[in-house]
Amino acid sequence: MSPPPRMTTEWKSVRLFPIPSIIYLIHNNVQFATLTYVDTSTYQILGNLKIVTTGILFRLFLRRKLSNLQWMAIVLLAVGTTTSQVKGCGEASCDSLFAAPIQGYMLGVLSACLSALAGVYTEFLMKKNNDSLYWQNVQLYTFGAIFNMFRLLLDDFRGGFENGAFWQRLFDGYSITTWMVVLNLGSTGLLVSWLMKYADNIVKVYSTSMAMLLTMVLSVYLFNFKPTLQLFLGIIICMMSLHMYFAPSSMLVDIPPAVKVAPESLREVSVDRRVDS
Amino acid sequence: MSPPPRMTTEWKSVRLFPIPSIIYLIHNNVQFATLTYVDTSTYQILGNLKIVTTGILFRLFLRRKLSNLQWMAIVLLAVGTTTSQVKGCGEASCDSLFAAPIQGYMLGVLSACLSALAGVYTEFLMKKNNDSLYWQNVQLYTFGAIFNMFRLLLDDFRGGFENGAFWQRLFDGYSITTWMVVLNLGSTGLLVSWLMKYADNIVKVYSTSMAMLLTMVLSVYLFNFKPTLQLFLGIIICMMSLHMYFAPSSMLVDIPPAVKVAPESLREVSVDRRVDS
Repeated sequence: MSPPPRMTTEWKSVRLFPIPSIIYLIHNNVQFATLTYVDTSTYQILGNLKIVTTGILFRLFLRRKLSNLQWMAIVLLAVGTTTSQVKGCGEASCDSLFAAPIQGYMLGVLSACLSALAGVYTEFLMKKNNDSLYWQNVQLYTFGAIFNMFRLLLDDFRGGFENGAFWQRLFDGYSITTWMVVLNLGSTGLLVSWLMKYADNIVKVYSTSMAMLLTMVLSVYLFNFKPTLQLFLGIIICMMSLHMYFAPSSMLVDIPPAVKVAPESLREVSVDRRVDS
Repeated sequence: MSPPPRMTTEWKSVRLFPIPSIIYLIHNNVQFATLTYVDTSTYQILGNLKIVTTGILFRLFLRRKLSNLQWMAIVLLAVGTTTSQVKGCGEASCDSLFAAPIQGYMLGVLSACLSALAGVYTEFLMKKNNDSLYWQNVQLYTFGAIFNMFRLLLDDFRGGFENGAFWQRLFDGYSITTWMVVLNLGSTGLLVSWLMKYADNIVKVYSTSMAMLLTMVLSVYLFNFKPTLQLFLGIIICMMSLHMYFAPSSMLVDIPPAVKVAPESLREVSVDRRVDS
């Protein structure tokens, strides 16, 4: 028989779990506000900023040290994903890229910070104790569901329950596709919480970026998208970044010989000593 | 009085100097052949391959060891310069990028190899002995001039000297602009030979790439070129590459603590010994 799952049920611990929901609540609204100022392709490109803000908050709040090379890798990952999204010649939208009002860019930066904050805070929560991953997820998602229910109830009240209560039409219009999307997002949520507990936020931004590039490559084969030079360049940049971030430093640089020699001379001295005594 | 410049005039040494001229002779003709197959923007992008081929020949012929990180930096430099040249939306030429006949790409690769070979061989020549840089230049350029004179004479013969000999109209049509171009290319030649003798080919590809990016940035200010996102991304990538290649490894990665500790324990052991005797 396997041991029962570890579950901390003290209020002191549980009360921390609504916080990510609140951050995501603000974040989602900031996203919609951003979209009133900038077009979708600028919005998509601003989204890559969250790679860099995640690195910064990861350092500041979780106090993880990153080497200079790892910082460079993080910036390159953001640059690589952006490169793959550069609009090619002949593509429909062709507005000048920095032409949106300044508020749009500021909201985009705020959005990137909030997204990173939510990620870093979730990692902190998941790693705080040895509670079962599933119990932690139950707490996270329960608060998320409660916040959404509040909003739905509010809408019902405002509409004077004309269409009945929200739970009576919660699954209205659900097709097989809808259920597949639900299944997909649900599995992604489980996998991400696993990443947060056993890996970290940086691993998550790498996997998200790689997934995006993979989607673009598959679109070329499955939907006959035209492969662009910028997609090819973006993939090379992200691969380089991945290697720079995760490869052990001895694989990347030659460790100076002076440092390597030290243990050898140490052994010689020890041998000398034995002869002396 | 300064000592006279060092000059080796033995045939055994001088005979090596026509070789770069011959390589460039072939290279220039391959370039024109490439342009009959590919359009100018593809040609420009293929030109970035010479950064990578220079790295490879630098390793093979000059036997310089590069760390994995330095190889990655060289690939990133090529990727960065290419990124900055990606055609943006709304730009005139919009042919599919890999649509040219395969011969075009093969000639482009050959051209990149020849260009790298000429560079690496020139570095070998310049560093072979302590001869004066100017004497080495005299030898290089004399052979270059002789090869060009041959061609001009050949044309005169073919045309039956109808327009007189080439030296009678060598400066025909020279304006002040022409002389400024001559002065510019002459100075560049001197600076490059200085780089080859006292630095190396990799320093040269970095300076060429940085010059290209600087030209693009200046064009935005001086000629009202539209700044593109890809120029901005290309500059970041090249700066990262520059830092990865040239920064000392201790600045890039944290050298593992186990190795750092070694000299300390060494000292302790030595102290022990003195007490023993």
